[in-house]
Amino acid sequence: MATIGEFGLIERVTRGRVQPPATLLGPGDDAAVVAQPDGRVVACVDVLVEGVHFRLDWSAPRDVGRKAVAANLADVAAMGAVPTGLLVGLAAPRDTPVATLEGLAEGMWAEAGVVGVGLVGGDVAASPTLVVSVTALGALEGRDPVTRGGARPGDVVAVCGRLGWAAAGLAVLTRGFRSPGALVDAHRAPTPPYAAGPTAALAGATAMIDVSDGLLADLGHVASESGVRLALRRDAFVVPERLAEVAPALGVDPLDWMLTGGEDHALAATFPPGTALPEGFVALGEVEEGEGVLVDGEPYAGSAGWEHFA
Amino acid sequence: MATIGEFGLIERVTRGRVQPPATLLGPGDDAAVVAQPDGRVVACVDVLVEGVHFRLDWSAPRDVGRKAVAANLADVAAMGAVPTGLLVGLAAPRDTPVATLEGLAEGMWAEAGVVGVGLVGGDVAASPTLVVSVTALGALEGRDPVTRGGARPGDVVAVCGRLGWAAAGLAVLTRGFRSPGALVDAHRAPTPPYAAGPTAALAGATAMIDVSDGLLADLGHVASESGVRLALRRDAFVVPERLAEVAPALGVDPLDWMLTGGEDHALAATFPPGTALPEGFVALGEVEEGEGVLVDGEPYAGSAGWEHFA
Repeated sequence: MATIGEFGLIERVTRGRVQPPATLLGPGDDAAVVAQPDGRVVACVDVLVEGVHFRLDWSAPRDVGRKAVAANLADVAAMGAVPTGLLVGLAAPRDTPVATLEGLAEGMWAEAGVVGVGLVGGDVAASPTLVVSVTALGALEGRDPVTRGGARPGDVVAVCGRLGWAAAGLAVLTRGFRSPGALVDAHRAPTPPYAAGPTAALAGATAMIDVSDGLLADLGHVASESGVRLALRRDAFVVPERLAEVAPALGVDPLDWMLTGGEDHALAATFPPGTALPEGFVALGEVEEGEGVLVDGEPYAGSAGWEHFA
Repeated sequence: MATIGEFGLIERVTRGRVQPPATLLGPGDDAAVVAQPDGRVVACVDVLVEGVHFRLDWSAPRDVGRKAVAANLADVAAMGAVPTGLLVGLAAPRDTPVATLEGLAEGMWAEAGVVGVGLVGGDVAASPTLVVSVTALGALEGRDPVTRGGARPGDVVAVCGRLGWAAAGLAVLTRGFRSPGALVDAHRAPTPPYAAGPTAALAGATAMIDVSDGLLADLGHVASESGVRLALRRDAFVVPERLAEVAPALGVDPLDWMLTGGEDHALAATFPPGTALPEGFVALGEVEEGEGVLVDGEPYAGSAGWEHFA
């Protein structure tokens, strides 16, 4: 990286990229300008650190780029918004191969392309540690944001997207295996159901959250912010065949992955009773008076998600 | 930091903070929502790395927080925009004292308060290296963004804000001194002329840039993006007394600091001929046909700014 310099690097990762119409002014100036037609911007940031959130011997740079962008786009979706642009803050060792940085950028553009947004700006700095900080911008299209605080007793709790796949993939890699590929790939880069966020908002979702730390941990935020209890039913969880196949070999209950594994970036939402759930959402329980998250009436015995500093 | 956890940390640095009206939804959800009344958002990101951009033995955490935010707010100003919100991506070692993180946050809030914006969101991750990534959002209030590409032959080149102070402060610290305090403070945290950005835009500025890498280096971007030459006059530079006093002791020509020192975050702009320059702007030269940046008709012999990976 030292050989091509900061400006050379930015030139390499932005050259020839096509910006969508929402990008009114793209990379290369002091700041970017992005259209936000309804007069509001949704904004969030996620930080990924080499050795903490990814390992370049387990994931290709392209996967890391995809994952960094996906985590952020999922946050935008969880507000019921559509993404409008991305900014990247990159701190990287001076001896980072240019190919690694190009791979990161390639993955970021690939994931951005899934939702049709551009990388509109960024910054690059030398650092002993590789740190990728992505900011996502989004638009609510005139709707109210769907927060974590709107769940009401009687609402249905539902999830759209994968649960436990990334955790299973990480477990596989941790034991030194490289297959099943579908699980390892799920750890390397998630495939969040971005479109389900705005769809859920339109269907009247009362609360929504991106499942990044584990379903129970993240639903716990909905419970506390909404001042309610979320009561899940164990038999509502259909264990995917892939998880059921590999779990016994690793001595794990696959439901543990589904309830406590993060990083698949499913969307968990609550809907008023009687709502026809949008395509892809599966009902897992109900909202009740009370607090916390229960499974079949009891706190779940597994580890409830994880905190980065715990 | 490990003792209070990610959520405890976020609670500590946001508790009791007052968000301005533009913050429609502040920290604590998947994403923030910020008002952008004219239907556009200005957005930029800056990354600061411990040991590269700051040293905690030379700068207090509060100064680092101020500096990280100031660099970004200056970028917003350089587009002719006013800031509307800030997001912070923080990567920090697990053994970082909570007081250090609180100091960082205190400085960020202090600098945000200078322009009346809030820290609307963020993310915290464990990392071997302390990295602070700040995203700033801004509003153009119906104006066109002032880019680097609009300078035209005949325009006046002018600067508002300090030149060379941070470089002089860094030189002082590098030689092992801690005074003069005004210069050392200028290195620790800049005082950019934020309001001058929108004012310059209203006065008809044709191009504008935040001076972060050094005046000659940054004007070089204006020259290349605009396809013009910027001709500066050496006698237009008034060397501040503080710089003149300390330069001989360090064997430095103070003009070198003013022309090549970065991180004061002055605003450099070009204005149509005959423009009454807004308060605080000092004319330093003219725009001509050609390319590059000249001082008294010649390339300046000093080092033209610096690249982080050079």
